[in-house]
Amino acid sequence: MRKYLEIFPVTGLPEVAAGDDLAGLIGDTADLRDGDVIAVTSKIVSKAEGRLTFGTRAEAVDAELVRVVASRGDTRIVQTRHGLVMAAAGTDTSNTAPGTVLLLPVDPDASARGLRGALKQRYDVNVGIVITDTLGRPWRVGQTDLAIGAAGVRVVEDLRGTTDTHGNVLAVTEPAIADEIASAGELVKGKADGVPVAVLRGLADVVLPVGEHGSGARALVRDAEHDMFSLGTREAARAAVLDRVPPGGPRSADPSLWADLVLDEGVHIELLDSSIGVFGEDPVAIGMTAERLAVLLHAEGYGVTVRTGPGSEATVTFGSRSA
Amino acid sequence: MRKYLEIFPVTGLPEVAAGDDLAGLIGDTADLRDGDVIAVTSKIVSKAEGRLTFGTRAEAVDAELVRVVASRGDTRIVQTRHGLVMAAAGTDTSNTAPGTVLLLPVDPDASARGLRGALKQRYDVNVGIVITDTLGRPWRVGQTDLAIGAAGVRVVEDLRGTTDTHGNVLAVTEPAIADEIASAGELVKGKADGVPVAVLRGLADVVLPVGEHGSGARALVRDAEHDMFSLGTREAARAAVLDRVPPGGPRSADPSLWADLVLDEGVHIELLDSSIGVFGEDPVAIGMTAERLAVLLHAEGYGVTVRTGPGSEATVTFGSRSA
Repeated sequence: MRKYLEIFPVTGLPEVAAGDDLAGLIGDTADLRDGDVIAVTSKIVSKAEGRLTFGTRAEAVDAELVRVVASRGDTRIVQTRHGLVMAAAGTDTSNTAPGTVLLLPVDPDASARGLRGALKQRYDVNVGIVITDTLGRPWRVGQTDLAIGAAGVRVVEDLRGTTDTHGNVLAVTEPAIADEIASAGELVKGKADGVPVAVLRGLADVVLPVGEHGSGARALVRDAEHDMFSLGTREAARAAVLDRVPPGGPRSADPSLWADLVLDEGVHIELLDSSIGVFGEDPVAIGMTAERLAVLLHAEGYGVTVRTGPGSEATVTFGSRSA
Repeated sequence: MRKYLEIFPVTGLPEVAAGDDLAGLIGDTADLRDGDVIAVTSKIVSKAEGRLTFGTRAEAVDAELVRVVASRGDTRIVQTRHGLVMAAAGTDTSNTAPGTVLLLPVDPDASARGLRGALKQRYDVNVGIVITDTLGRPWRVGQTDLAIGAAGVRVVEDLRGTTDTHGNVLAVTEPAIADEIASAGELVKGKADGVPVAVLRGLADVVLPVGEHGSGARALVRDAEHDMFSLGTREAARAAVLDRVPPGGPRSADPSLWADLVLDEGVHIELLDSSIGVFGEDPVAIGMTAERLAVLLHAEGYGVTVRTGPGSEATVTFGSRSA
């Protein structure tokens, strides 16, 4: 248990421009102590690193994205090179000159390590750094600040396998400390006030020894393949038709996967080792049924191909999705 | 801008049991002041309210859920009566006796209002209450604490339309303050230590006047129909086949919706006002194409029906999803 946490904004920082010495600006302005955690808005890191580009925001998003996760109207939720899933790839046009777009730092964990190292070297202080950005989230209104970069901070507290005060195992509990630090810092930084840095004092137990930078915020990114929400609802349904891949290696299928599928009258199916045959009187209905089976198999991560013939029948061939 | 934020754990609270007077326990233990925000772990609210049930956790989840959002293996992400999307419907078996499951409070906003009112009445102090729970999230490793109940706290800071220090409009910025308060509180509460209450001092500007409880944490729930992630990737693809609804009222369709669909050789389609005709040589391929069109239309929120006939053709009828 921590005894007491203080959070204060670092006020009086000048406007940051490309090439500015962020460590000097922060170190000269804030009274830092060993064990402090500094939450730094990514925007000033980007500015210091000269991450300004010319053109429209849409062009900047195109250049920054790795894949589109979901879109609706003008809103695009994309995954960035950093693995972050966020609207508009974290690009920013507020507080920037017209016709320019501010991008996220190239490597926010590296930025955090650089800042931490410079503060140690020049101010002889061992602090943790969390670089923050403001992200929306599914299912909830509004945004919270999260950690997109970190150095010298334990970003996740792994309590899996530990016991609570009753001796029960805390099976799935991994508090994302760096994200909670980012959110806590936002409470004093605020958006509209131009206060881009907050200091959290009282978390020395999550600050790593000098020389250890830790896993960085990259460790907070969950890979898409392990994520139940790797695509938006719309995109997932479209992908089931448009982004299907043929079967790779063998993989068995359980009929419960299509147990909820009501077959048209006269249509019947037959499961073999790596395919499903679809037969019946009405060849159009056969094609429809085969396609429905293909979508259901795709949903479960199968590679799948639908072929017609030889006669009025269809064959759905399935297997693992990897080639 | 806020000057300074202090967060301290409320230590020395006894184990909470059904019927306990939570306001008395907290008010007697903590030195509360006007403008404080109290973050209370939902578990002790549930315990005080006697929200313990007998049976397995799976049975409890079945009883608590409104709909399944995503599932994989034994993990079920569901939406609760409160609108919350969370694993296992927020049920809890840690810190509980074997064979019992702790449920979320029936109405966490009401619980928060009750606690706030009692603290005012008996300790003459105007505090904000945030009832917290620990939630996982898409795309990120680990969990953070969020607000599932609130009273007397401005839960979202609506900055839309306000300007930054450069005069730019902060178009989409709505910090979810109550969620950030919950996360900040977790930093001192911790999971394994049995410290279920934290006090945040320095946020008096988000505490509402006596008598105003505000919107509560319910206002942080985004409706599924406005959410781009209303279903998991797997569930969204399955729903495109299994949960389709027939067209309600008229709605036009833009051919760009199926522009990426490669038609089988010899198959052609014809868009009419509220239907698409599918024609060609191979009736199985016609059925497959019609079904693919239906999935793509479902993905865009259309009600859709596929019919075969009159000859070797299929008709995809579409319209609004509402009846």
